[in-house]
Amino acid sequence: MREVNILVLGFGNVGQEFVRMVEKKRDRVEQDYEIKPVWLTVFRRETRWDIAKGYDILPLFKRDLSTLFHPLQTGKVKDDLQLCLQTASPGVLLDCSVSDPQTGKPGYEIWKSALEAGWHVVTASKGPLVYDFKGIQEAAQKKSCRLGISGAAAAALPTVDLACYALAGTEIRRIEGILNGTSNYVLTRMSEGQSYAEALKAAQGKGIAEPDPSMDVKGWDTAFKILIIANAVFGAAYNLEDMTVTGIDTLTLKELEEASKKGLRFKLLGRYEKMNEGEVLEVAPKALDPSHPLYQVSGSEKGISFETDTMGTITVIGGRSSPVGAAAALLKDLINICSST
Amino acid sequence: MREVNILVLGFGNVGQEFVRMVEKKRDRVEQDYEIKPVWLTVFRRETRWDIAKGYDILPLFKRDLSTLFHPLQTGKVKDDLQLCLQTASPGVLLDCSVSDPQTGKPGYEIWKSALEAGWHVVTASKGPLVYDFKGIQEAAQKKSCRLGISGAAAAALPTVDLACYALAGTEIRRIEGILNGTSNYVLTRMSEGQSYAEALKAAQGKGIAEPDPSMDVKGWDTAFKILIIANAVFGAAYNLEDMTVTGIDTLTLKELEEASKKGLRFKLLGRYEKMNEGEVLEVAPKALDPSHPLYQVSGSEKGISFETDTMGTITVIGGRSSPVGAAAALLKDLINICSST
Repeated sequence: MREVNILVLGFGNVGQEFVRMVEKKRDRVEQDYEIKPVWLTVFRRETRWDIAKGYDILPLFKRDLSTLFHPLQTGKVKDDLQLCLQTASPGVLLDCSVSDPQTGKPGYEIWKSALEAGWHVVTASKGPLVYDFKGIQEAAQKKSCRLGISGAAAAALPTVDLACYALAGTEIRRIEGILNGTSNYVLTRMSEGQSYAEALKAAQGKGIAEPDPSMDVKGWDTAFKILIIANAVFGAAYNLEDMTVTGIDTLTLKELEEASKKGLRFKLLGRYEKMNEGEVLEVAPKALDPSHPLYQVSGSEKGISFETDTMGTITVIGGRSSPVGAAAALLKDLINICSST
Repeated sequence: MREVNILVLGFGNVGQEFVRMVEKKRDRVEQDYEIKPVWLTVFRRETRWDIAKGYDILPLFKRDLSTLFHPLQTGKVKDDLQLCLQTASPGVLLDCSVSDPQTGKPGYEIWKSALEAGWHVVTASKGPLVYDFKGIQEAAQKKSCRLGISGAAAAALPTVDLACYALAGTEIRRIEGILNGTSNYVLTRMSEGQSYAEALKAAQGKGIAEPDPSMDVKGWDTAFKILIIANAVFGAAYNLEDMTVTGIDTLTLKELEEASKKGLRFKLLGRYEKMNEGEVLEVAPKALDPSHPLYQVSGSEKGISFETDTMGTITVIGGRSSPVGAAAALLKDLINICSST
């Protein structure tokens, strides 16, 4: 049995669900994988980084947080976080916070400190990976630390681990993914005759789309994911400037109707392809014919397809889109990292 | 860079393709995974176990086989195999031979010797796994050896590794697989109006079905695969006697037509399910409706679907059915085992 210190960053829906899931599955995790997760502490940002307290989940923690770090009540939470990273036995930094993809802040600096101190990083946060994937990867390699990025790359839909593990030894020539549930839901409703505005409203009504859906419908969420996947799979250093990103918000009902008449379905695809003239990395709506492996992916479902040299095309579809699905992806990475290191 | 001795058992289409593929990809394997495959020798059964020679692939081998073991010319090839396992530095036994699922012979005894001597086993052969999965697994664990069984469990379609790695930490409640390309091809043609005999003849004409297709159409190939997958995923000890196996050879065109009228498609499913009253493990043709994740899997394509507690349902479709696809599955297992041990 191996004890693994876990430092949780961010304590919204996903962070709370992760803690709940680990406690619910603790016996199986300890028995099947010989890993004993130890909750070190939770850092949470409200107006400033702050320690989570008062949540009904706290009784689950084995330690009394208030005794763990002295300056707890001083408000110097950033210092506390650094102190924790420097003094505790390195385990896993579990990032469920939100960081800015343009600057990587605030996660980027925290990850760098954590990796430098020998912590593995498992993340649902995309910001630092979009901002500087290569820099993060090099910082990890330098200290033989591992990055668990499933939670930032379509979560419960297997993407990076499928490519790196189940397709090990193949050359991946093309990746196509429907990676954003909101866009796919809106397109599916539009193909049934609803206008963009009606479909979006329906998605918001069902809690699929956020009140401000622009990151989803303008293609940015898809762009972040395919960028992270491509960098992870190819050990590359692509950034957003290498991509063209087109959303679904400019598609007209007429375009969808015409596609439908030809038996085609519009999908918002994140795409990587090796061409003779170099690699293409883009996000755009594409009209797919029924023979396309992602043609059937409808509603808020996601899917990804890998074209390889020796295994043919491998397509994965499904994976729950919810805090539970995201937490499950984090747990998977935690298990795979701690079982193999 | 880590040198890995490889002892190849069986040198038919898959074995030869495997050696060819490793040599073709040698630079990438050495560079990306820091593994240097070293060909030790090839054992081949003709009328007796015999050393492969005279194949145009032999110049690829770095060693002169005839000098490696003294009794080479004596015909005592079984002794040579044992000598090789006992005296060489243990690496990977790569089994591309054919063994009897009822008795495990001849692979079973060879694997046991190999594992006892510290060799990992990577296999395209199902026989020993169907015969005594648990026994093999225990022999491996005793010596901290690993089993690479992708090649015996739908090959280029990821099954076991997807479940154990990409779904780590989930509870898998149901597995359904279209695992036999021949049966699925025949069913697809029948759903287009051909008779069973016509469809089978077409499959044989295309090289999809073997001259004696009974293992495929009677469901046994599917049974072997779902049995291996269930045992691997659940660490169980199911055997063929725990299963009911029904093939497609008794389905009538009328049954298919009636299903078709209702919008259903018949598929030969290998199925595992956790029920209140215990587990069900079976092979049978089922009429699927369009919402089923495997409804779209047509022709000689394969697919598998996992229903989990926390990630929802994850379905993988595709994977080349050919000696190249099988060799790629063997290479993947070799890489994953040698990278992590």
